[in-house]
Amino acid sequence: MTLRFTIEAKDRGTPARAGVVASERGSFRTPAFMPVGTAATVKGVWPAQLREMGYGCILGNTYHLYLRPGHERVRGLGGLHRFMGWDRLILTDSGGFQVFSMSALRKVSDEAVSFRSHVDGSAHILTPELAVEIQETLGSDLRMALDECVAYPAERREIEEAVRRTTLWAERSLSARRLPDGGMLGIVQGGMFADLRRRSVEEICALPFEGFAIGGVSVGEGKELQRETVERTAPMLPADAPRYLMGVGTPGDLLYAVARGVDLFDCVLPTRNARNGMMFTSAGQVTVKQARYKDDSLPPDERCGCPTCRTFSRAYLRHLHMQGEMLSSMAMTVHNLTFYSRLMERAREAISRGNFGEFMKESLGSGIE
Amino acid sequence: MTLRFTIEAKDRGTPARAGVVASERGSFRTPAFMPVGTAATVKGVWPAQLREMGYGCILGNTYHLYLRPGHERVRGLGGLHRFMGWDRLILTDSGGFQVFSMSALRKVSDEAVSFRSHVDGSAHILTPELAVEIQETLGSDLRMALDECVAYPAERREIEEAVRRTTLWAERSLSARRLPDGGMLGIVQGGMFADLRRRSVEEICALPFEGFAIGGVSVGEGKELQRETVERTAPMLPADAPRYLMGVGTPGDLLYAVARGVDLFDCVLPTRNARNGMMFTSAGQVTVKQARYKDDSLPPDERCGCPTCRTFSRAYLRHLHMQGEMLSSMAMTVHNLTFYSRLMERAREAISRGNFGEFMKESLGSGIE
Repeated sequence: MTLRFTIEAKDRGTPARAGVVASERGSFRTPAFMPVGTAATVKGVWPAQLREMGYGCILGNTYHLYLRPGHERVRGLGGLHRFMGWDRLILTDSGGFQVFSMSALRKVSDEAVSFRSHVDGSAHILTPELAVEIQETLGSDLRMALDECVAYPAERREIEEAVRRTTLWAERSLSARRLPDGGMLGIVQGGMFADLRRRSVEEICALPFEGFAIGGVSVGEGKELQRETVERTAPMLPADAPRYLMGVGTPGDLLYAVARGVDLFDCVLPTRNARNGMMFTSAGQVTVKQARYKDDSLPPDERCGCPTCRTFSRAYLRHLHMQGEMLSSMAMTVHNLTFYSRLMERAREAISRGNFGEFMKESLGSGIE
Repeated sequence: MTLRFTIEAKDRGTPARAGVVASERGSFRTPAFMPVGTAATVKGVWPAQLREMGYGCILGNTYHLYLRPGHERVRGLGGLHRFMGWDRLILTDSGGFQVFSMSALRKVSDEAVSFRSHVDGSAHILTPELAVEIQETLGSDLRMALDECVAYPAERREIEEAVRRTTLWAERSLSARRLPDGGMLGIVQGGMFADLRRRSVEEICALPFEGFAIGGVSVGEGKELQRETVERTAPMLPADAPRYLMGVGTPGDLLYAVARGVDLFDCVLPTRNARNGMMFTSAGQVTVKQARYKDDSLPPDERCGCPTCRTFSRAYLRHLHMQGEMLSSMAMTVHNLTFYSRLMERAREAISRGNFGEFMKESLGSGIE
């Protein structure tokens, strides 16, 4: 069985939709946020906590797992799910984004991208075929085709080249599939150029992928250009396949994209910001470094029922953060991920009721950014 | 109500005993290990996890909490229990051990010990009265009298002076009590000198404390001298009050002391070693840095049912540790603290059966160190 996507409800006033993504391993509801588990762990939380928060799919990074501990080692230990103690779905990226953003001495050709590891400088060559092989070896459920992701700003010529190469690599990625299970998603590039985005959509969406992603965003373009790109690109993607906006974003960014018909998201913001002492709440951001929280006995978010908000005050979390205590990151990560999960849950409910626009307006009005 | 101690069972072949320590807040069974929560958090675990592991009492450090966030601030936030989200018992030390081991420019007189904070160099003066006031302000259940703790090795004259001063301070600590609840424990000093230990026991145990601690161990004396001191001192302490061996030790050290009639323990070993990648198991220590664990799919301890052993392999924990992932410390801390909790539980069961000596022999024979 390959990946299935079922739309269960459509909003009345916007292109937002609520659905279910299903593989042989299980299913999860969309719109969905996927926490990032770079090195086979979502930093600071136990797998059981992710389940309790309602997450049905998390993300693993091919680039990192390929370098350490190595995909063959992970297979030998029973695959990525067993390795990290997570029995729900896993999406792996292709490794491309990290190769283009983290590695050194990068050299790209139509054949492959060669690079040196950011860890030890060792030389590696990533091809579309290898990216598929690594992901199949890890045993992820949703796999991404290798794309060429270009940072902003970039010359038109550079983006044009990336669009062309991304299509070439998408075709090779599909041909490289060996396993019949799970699903593969193609990635649309095109930078901030409307016509190149359209060209990439036309080329990528003509291919038999199980889903389609908007790539080449969250690369330094800023909120306005990003939203323009989402607004322009999302409606062009096939309506009957899941749409994935890669590497985005704040709660407000998610709501904005859901309203344009996007189904899937991943981002390091809720987990990374938690480690920096920042929490997303229904009344806006709480940054515990601020001295105003020294004696604040309130929970981070009075409208949240997560273990952190049930147990700890802002003053305590500030104390932990200032002392560099692990529980600071742990507790704020649980809060932020609960906040994201609950936001997507409420988005699904609003879509089912047919009033997502109203829900979004209220959420943004209450302070969600 | 002050602290009560009830002995429920005595071993047949050794002075080991099983009992219950109870205050108005609740009770816990002895022999008991108390995890160390230095800065109002046991590093790497949630309070709920400590409850699940069966812990009934944890330790807080007066020195650290006095400096940051300050005991008055903690009181303003509802007391230490509420502050850290822990509703079972808390033992606070007097601050003395840290003043003598961590602070700078220390100057001690019969009146007080003056020192500079290890954090910011600020000047402070700790008296027996202030140590009691801080602990009462924090709202702990078991409180320690301020003692003078001397590092090993030390001149006899120095230890003699510490014994004298510790008794003086013990009397002042008792006079400084303002709250009728909880209990205060006196601390016996005397270094490695048998006659000075005896003198300190005679002086401290003549005072109306609710329990008695063996201090001045775990100060660099080594395992053999420590065990000699425990062997010599424990039997001299009143039989009807809890006996607390401060800052000790390995699982083997605990069993050794339980067999000499000690009831309470605290130590940073299980939590600190977890952060360094070392786990205590029923078959000895597992140090995940070792390359032999690279592909080891076994749980840390095949005879352990903790969340870590149920979920993760040694290879995965090694991977997390090598990557510096938080979950490494979190998972290994849960394992080690479960191991300590379960060891004390099994010790209590063995004492109730009357065959603690046999249990101890078997445990040490299987590899427990």
